[in-house]
Amino acid sequence: MTAVKSPLTEAAQKTTGEALQGALVDLIDLGLLGKQAHWNLTGRNFKVVHEHLDEVVALARQYQDEVAERSVALGVNPDGRARTIADRTTIPQLEAGYLADDKVVAAIADVLAQLIEKFRDRIALTDQPDPVTQDLFIAITAALEKQHWMFQAQV
Amino acid sequence: MTAVKSPLTEAAQKTTGEALQGALVDLIDLGLLGKQAHWNLTGRNFKVVHEHLDEVVALARQYQDEVAERSVALGVNPDGRARTIADRTTIPQLEAGYLADDKVVAAIADVLAQLIEKFRDRIALTDQPDPVTQDLFIAITAALEKQHWMFQAQV
Amino acid sequence: MTAVKSPLTEAAQKTTGEALQGALVDLIDLGLLGKQAHWNLTGRNFKVVHEHLDEVVALARQYQDEVAERSVALGVNPDGRARTIADRTTIPQLEAGYLADDKVVAAIADVLAQLIEKFRDRIALTDQPDPVTQDLFIAITAALEKQHWMFQAQV
Amino acid sequence: MTAVKSPLTEAAQKTTGEALQGALVDLIDLGLLGKQAHWNLTGRNFKVVHEHLDEVVALARQYQDEVAERSVALGVNPDGRARTIADRTTIPQLEAGYLADDKVVAAIADVLAQLIEKFRDRIALTDQPDPVTQDLFIAITAALEKQHWMFQAQV
Amino acid sequence: MTAVKSPLTEAAQKTTGEALQGALVDLIDLGLLGKQAHWNLTGRNFKVVHEHLDEVVALARQYQDEVAERSVALGVNPDGRARTIADRTTIPQLEAGYLADDKVVAAIADVLAQLIEKFRDRIALTDQPDPVTQDLFIAITAALEKQHWMFQAQV
Amino acid sequence: MTAVKSPLTEAAQKTTGEALQGALVDLIDLGLLGKQAHWNLTGRNFKVVHEHLDEVVALARQYQDEVAERSVALGVNPDGRARTIADRTTIPQLEAGYLADDKVVAAIADVLAQLIEKFRDRIALTDQPDPVTQDLFIAITAALEKQHWMFQAQV
Amino acid sequence: MTAVKSPLTEAAQKTTGEALQGALVDLIDLGLLGKQAHWNLTGRNFKVVHEHLDEVVALARQYQDEVAERSVALGVNPDGRARTIADRTTIPQLEAGYLADDKVVAAIADVLAQLIEKFRDRIALTDQPDPVTQDLFIAITAALEKQHWMFQAQV
Amino acid sequence: MTAVKSPLTEAAQKTTGEALQGALVDLIDLGLLGKQAHWNLTGRNFKVVHEHLDEVVALARQYQDEVAERSVALGVNPDGRARTIADRTTIPQLEAGYLADDKVVAAIADVLAQLIEKFRDRIALTDQPDPVTQDLFIAITAALEKQHWMFQAQV
Amino acid sequence: MTAVKSPLTEAAQKTTGEALQGALVDLIDLGLLGKQAHWNLTGRNFKVVHEHLDEVVALARQYQDEVAERSVALGVNPDGRARTIADRTTIPQLEAGYLADDKVVAAIADVLAQLIEKFRDRIALTDQPDPVTQDLFIAITAALEKQHWMFQAQV
Amino acid sequence: MTAVKSPLTEAAQKTTGEALQGALVDLIDLGLLGKQAHWNLTGRNFKVVHEHLDEVVALARQYQDEVAERSVALGVNPDGRARTIADRTTIPQLEAGYLADDKVVAAIADVLAQLIEKFRDRIALTDQPDPVTQDLFIAITAALEKQHWMFQAQV
Amino acid sequence: MTAVKSPLTEAAQKTTGEALQGALVDLIDLGLLGKQAHWNLTGRNFKVVHEHLDEVVALARQYQDEVAERSVALGVNPDGRARTIADRTTIPQLEAGYLADDKVVAAIADVLAQLIEKFRDRIALTDQPDPVTQDLFIAITAALEKQHWMFQAQV
Amino acid sequence: MTAVKSPLTEAAQKTTGEALQGALVDLIDLGLLGKQAHWNLTGRNFKVVHEHLDEVVALARQYQDEVAERSVALGVNPDGRARTIADRTTIPQLEAGYLADDKVVAAIADVLAQLIEKFRDRIALTDQPDPVTQDLFIAITAALEKQHWMFQAQV
Repeated sequence: MTAVKSPLTEAAQKTTGEALQGALVDLIDLGLLGKQAHWNLTGRNFKVVHEHLDEVVALARQYQDEVAERSVALGVNPDGRARTIADRTTIPQLEAGYLADDKVVAAIADVLAQLIEKFRDRIALTDQPDPVTQDLFIAITAALEKQHWMFQAQV
Repeated sequence: MTAVKSPLTEAAQKTTGEALQGALVDLIDLGLLGKQAHWNLTGRNFKVVHEHLDEVVALARQYQDEVAERSVALGVNPDGRARTIADRTTIPQLEAGYLADDKVVAAIADVLAQLIEKFRDRIALTDQPDPVTQDLFIAITAALEKQHWMFQAQV
Repeated sequence: MTAVKSPLTEAAQKTTGEALQGALVDLIDLGLLGKQAHWNLTGRNFKVVHEHLDEVVALARQYQDEVAERSVALGVNPDGRARTIADRTTIPQLEAGYLADDKVVAAIADVLAQLIEKFRDRIALTDQPDPVTQDLFIAITAALEKQHWMFQAQV
Repeated sequence: MTAVKSPLTEAAQKTTGEALQGALVDLIDLGLLGKQAHWNLTGRNFKVVHEHLDEVVALARQYQDEVAERSVALGVNPDGRARTIADRTTIPQLEAGYLADDKVVAAIADVLAQLIEKFRDRIALTDQPDPVTQDLFIAITAALEKQHWMFQAQV
Repeated sequence: MTAVKSPLTEAAQKTTGEALQGALVDLIDLGLLGKQAHWNLTGRNFKVVHEHLDEVVALARQYQDEVAERSVALGVNPDGRARTIADRTTIPQLEAGYLADDKVVAAIADVLAQLIEKFRDRIALTDQPDPVTQDLFIAITAALEKQHWMFQAQV
Repeated sequence: MTAVKSPLTEAAQKTTGEALQGALVDLIDLGLLGKQAHWNLTGRNFKVVHEHLDEVVALARQYQDEVAERSVALGVNPDGRARTIADRTTIPQLEAGYLADDKVVAAIADVLAQLIEKFRDRIALTDQPDPVTQDLFIAITAALEKQHWMFQAQV
Repeated sequence: MTAVKSPLTEAAQKTTGEALQGALVDLIDLGLLGKQAHWNLTGRNFKVVHEHLDEVVALARQYQDEVAERSVALGVNPDGRARTIADRTTIPQLEAGYLADDKVVAAIADVLAQLIEKFRDRIALTDQPDPVTQDLFIAITAALEKQHWMFQAQV
Repeated sequence: MTAVKSPLTEAAQKTTGEALQGALVDLIDLGLLGKQAHWNLTGRNFKVVHEHLDEVVALARQYQDEVAERSVALGVNPDGRARTIADRTTIPQLEAGYLADDKVVAAIADVLAQLIEKFRDRIALTDQPDPVTQDLFIAITAALEKQHWMFQAQV
Repeated sequence: MTAVKSPLTEAAQKTTGEALQGALVDLIDLGLLGKQAHWNLTGRNFKVVHEHLDEVVALARQYQDEVAERSVALGVNPDGRARTIADRTTIPQLEAGYLADDKVVAAIADVLAQLIEKFRDRIALTDQPDPVTQDLFIAITAALEKQHWMFQAQV
Repeated sequence: MTAVKSPLTEAAQKTTGEALQGALVDLIDLGLLGKQAHWNLTGRNFKVVHEHLDEVVALARQYQDEVAERSVALGVNPDGRARTIADRTTIPQLEAGYLADDKVVAAIADVLAQLIEKFRDRIALTDQPDPVTQDLFIAITAALEKQHWMFQAQV
Repeated sequence: MTAVKSPLTEAAQKTTGEALQGALVDLIDLGLLGKQAHWNLTGRNFKVVHEHLDEVVALARQYQDEVAERSVALGVNPDGRARTIADRTTIPQLEAGYLADDKVVAAIADVLAQLIEKFRDRIALTDQPDPVTQDLFIAITAALEKQHWMFQAQV
Repeated sequence: MTAVKSPLTEAAQKTTGEALQGALVDLIDLGLLGKQAHWNLTGRNFKVVHEHLDEVVALARQYQDEVAERSVALGVNPDGRARTIADRTTIPQLEAGYLADDKVVAAIADVLAQLIEKFRDRIALTDQPDPVTQDLFIAITAALEKQHWMFQAQV
């Protein structure tokens, strides 16, 4: 079984592939974390935050797919298995049990701020090796920053 | 922060809650595994299997949500965090890297067979303590058995 | 004018018919109560609760119809007239005038808790005489318990 | 908890508010009566009349909401609770049990004729105090008169 | 060519498989009979009954598919060939030629009554061997009983 | 009960009516055969062929209806009952049990080839007596020939 | 202002143009007549016939447009003005005032029978001069014959 | 066959009924005239005016129906037959044959101006006898005045 | 370039035209103000109020268009240019910078109260000169009063 | 690799296949030419003609597919490659560079007139060998003649 | 009330924030100007230009929102109040009163040319400080240049 | 007839314009080639590849239009005429006649690889002269690389 032939040079493929794999781990864990909060939420703003979290999950799932398919299109196998996510994620994890709405809002705002920083690094890193992948990272960053503002606005 | 008041007795709540948590781990990992195969697939039947796997992922995601929300509605906090899934899943994991289409079809058929057995046990277990949860497990089992047949038919 | 010929024995028809008539009264009054709160609501969470109440009303109206049509399909005439509802409802009634959002949330959570208990009894009662009707009660209970959790979570 | 500040003078608010409350009782009971007939109907024209009644119910429910929300927008609390409807409705009530299709058609035609008379009075009453509410009553009357014609045409 | 591996024991598979094959013959013939009446109908109520029959056909076709796919998912080959239906159906057949609307209504009501009895037996038979199949039979029975009521109501 | 008055002469009506009845038997059996294969299929191309067969069934069902309604519009009663189909069909029947995908593809291609021949005869036969019916046969033939090509292309 | 250049010879254009103008008058008057009956209808089958007539009106309006645009595409100006319709229509006119449902059904069946005869003549007339126009007349005839059967079936 | 019982007094019914009948003639002829121009149009602006005329036709047809159904709902039979329209219309008729786009635009603007004047009279006439009908005339006038502006703007 | 010919007398046109121009300024500024708050909002109820404001903007934009097109249809040029809005608006302006959710809710409630007063004057002013324009003002007032109630309810 | 088995005799296949290949070249080049004009258009009627040309392109693309698939269904390989179109097209080609709207309208009208003539020949040629293909050519001719009229009308 | 924490450095935030505020003023005024022309337009091409202007307005409104929300996501408060737009816009303003279609087309083409120049500067300015905002400016420029071409093409 | 005024300098316009014209030829020929394979395909995977090729055609057609309209928006006339495509395309052409599915898959993968290389050059070339056009090339490259991966994966 031969690998997909990459349109990039080996070096460009390596840099870009690592950035994509890092993004994949981030986005899968963002989706899991969003659902965990969606389910265990409590508080006066339950209904609104509950639904807002599903927008974050939808965004995370859409970009997981685009990031992973971009990776394999460059000849780099994406790895989104449970063990990989659990071991490599750097997102601060939520507690088990009920989660108060104001704490969830603050936690999501923090998580998004951390992810934005990492995605901005990936934009810079891929500028030379692959502007096509960079364009995808720009789109993801725009979406994350929009959510970040909305969560921050209600802290 | 008070827990949601359960409509079940404590014993019924315990049995049902454990069954739901087990189901949640299964379904989240089924979704991750389905995507891993969806992305890394190769072979002459790539296009069909690639799309078929997304039906499995959609099914897994729909029932994740119903199972977790059923759990919290009974006063039991669902846990769908990355670490929990990685540690508790019993589904045999896929290799990293490219995956040949016939091997994926066989692997999915096997995974579904294992899950079906566990869901049939959950149907039996919840018959007395909570027929409402049992009804959900019956619906999930029907869906898994339909997919199981379709993957088996092409082995 | 002959009655619809029931597929049930007389005894089964009687038990099931009474359970369905009780359910009908509950669901019609839940719909009226939901609208009363929807209209007279005040408070900082007005917009969210106002819309959330309409989900409860929609649910109540959908199952009114299914319960009443199930009843007549078994040869038992459903009675959903205003006087019947007013006289037989056991749901605690709302005050006239403006209703504060937090009190409405608590009141709806309580009403749902009471209805769930009654529907769980109906599930038990219809298990032998009519599993088809039981299946409908299971579906209604699942829907009520989901709403119950969401109102409780914001108390 | 302060009342909503009315855009009307006190006198205009009183006249208009009473007209709206009367309309609300009429429309809720029309909806309940329409469903009662929808469920217990028999006769050769069952299918057509069964579905036609649901058009009446849909109309009644749509205008209940508009009438009640118009009322509270004027600072007058609408009252649509079961007891209120049962006690204040002036619509002749249907018998319990099966209802022959031709009798239902005649009964609905009569009910609609009575409601039209009352709504025409409300149009006249609100002309000065509140042309905005009058406009709503005109729309409801038009809809009722259309249904009235269609039921009369088949008597 | 290996058979699909059944999630049931051999005995459970046999009982459930026979019940599903019986249901399949019933539902295919109900669809053929519904169309035969749909085409050859006459009488003052032609238009309504003509369209009502297509609802029955749609229902029969939807459940044919679910029943047959459930069967093969259990490792039992469904048989829906013309000869099988003609030889095994127990539904009383319609005359050739024009069919008066009132006779069709009565005939359909009778056919549905007979099918309901058989499906209620299948619900009882599959309770132990396969609650998943039982759940499908419960859904079919509910649908048939609703249609049965509506045809009976217009006899 | 009088027959529908035909717009054709008696001779034209006879020729056209027989052609339509023959077409009806063909199309109903094509639908049953398509479903039989849809359900019992196995092999590496299961998913694609499974779905392709449903396109054939949809086509068969659409034209059954048009052919039968065309027939009665000409005053000739269509006969689509199970016994009629079983006795008069000339389509080679499928074996019971599992069906390998390549054999199904070949079998459908053959069945379509036979039907096309018969429909081309019907086009010739109805040219003079009824160009309106001929136009329907032309449309059916075009659809069958398109499917025939697609099945042949994968033999 | 030059006329549109016809793709037909002068003789063919004349024959085809006259057939199209005749068809236009028929279809516009069928639409007016259908609405007249739709509005003034009475009787127990009011609702069904009222809606059925609108199907006829929709059909008449769709084909008016196709016939008139086909005419001008051949360089022949269609004339659909009120005076032209009133003077040239040969369709028997309805009485003013209320119209009983059974009489309307019979009248529509008769009108359709007359139109079908005229359209069958137009099919024959245009076979040589313009098969493209003939194809349109065949489609219209098929639609009229379907409606004719449905009205006849309920006489 | 009894007439529909009018909600108006005899005098009010007479005034309103005549206004509605006049409106019906206007609107049916506007629809016929719009189509005549739609078909026979020529000129550089053909495509735009051709499509704009269909908006006028759609408007005319929608209000024909509302006006005629309003009339019968008041117990006055609407008359929309070809002869009635041809004899009573006061709209200036178009020439037969091709129609230049700028002349059509001017003619439609004139026709609309005339109709607006008549509808404004009907608004005044029905103010006392029937504000419900007046409301319909107001809506029609608003729609006609909007079209009038748009046609005038391009003269 | 000639002005559009007005269906009103000069005096009526003047009164109505001024009322429409005033309404236009109000509605455009309401739309700008709604967006300003939509963007700069902060506070725990951010998400709900953020979305609620967009409903107000949508309403303002829909009626801007209807008011301005109504004006030009009467031969009066609407003026919606930036300078005109800035100079003539009487709506109290928002501060620059972040806006707390409770202050926004109160501010919008106040703005709506002021607009309602002005629109009620316009209803009175146009009653004689142009009931068609009055009807539009009635619809706008109803919509504003509904929003006013919903904002007031959450103060 | 065997060719698709044709339902036609060799002679009929040859005549029909050549007619279809000719039609394919015409329709592909019509689509290319329509786009060329769509992009390079200038003039006061730019917007309307720009959009009208896309209707022609859509029509050309739809029938390309039907013509080519009809050809292969008859066992004749369609050839739609760039070189084939460039060498065999007989449609007069457009100049490079900007194209004035009135010249484009005239050019399209001419091209359509030429194509219509060729398609009318194909209708005549295929009458005996294959009425199914003839029916497709009739449909294409009707569509081309409709467009021809509309472009001519604006010359 | 704390400001939203910006993901940019202070300098980058300042440059980007000013560019976004400038873009916001441009886009709001483009929307107002588009509507002003949409309403006061006259001339033979009224209908097409009237509708084309609404495409420009829709584009302006969509990007207003994206630009303003991007700004606040970067911690810079957007200012879209009437006074701000009136004072800071550099777009040449339209005259009051009727506007001839050819003058409007030329004016819009000019306005778009000016805006494009400014947006191309903003693309250059934001390349280093914020590629995410730059990507938004690129998308807006592409959309403006497409409209610019279409308006220029019809000058 | 004046050319569209370009927003670019002459040199930038020349570079960008040539890149766009090259892209246009590539994308039109990709569309023609995709259809040629879509029609003449054979082999066991016919159905899947047949449909997959239509995705490529849709992609090619969408970007043809965007590329050509981008070109004219920059004042450079796109040329998409048949002769131009045939003479300038560098894509390896398909053989006439039937095409085996595996060869088609390999051929499409090769064609896409060649196009990707050329589009990556165009991304580099337009970086300075026109980032707006570059952004379009980036989007096209991303789409081509996704398809390239999917075709490669099944080789």
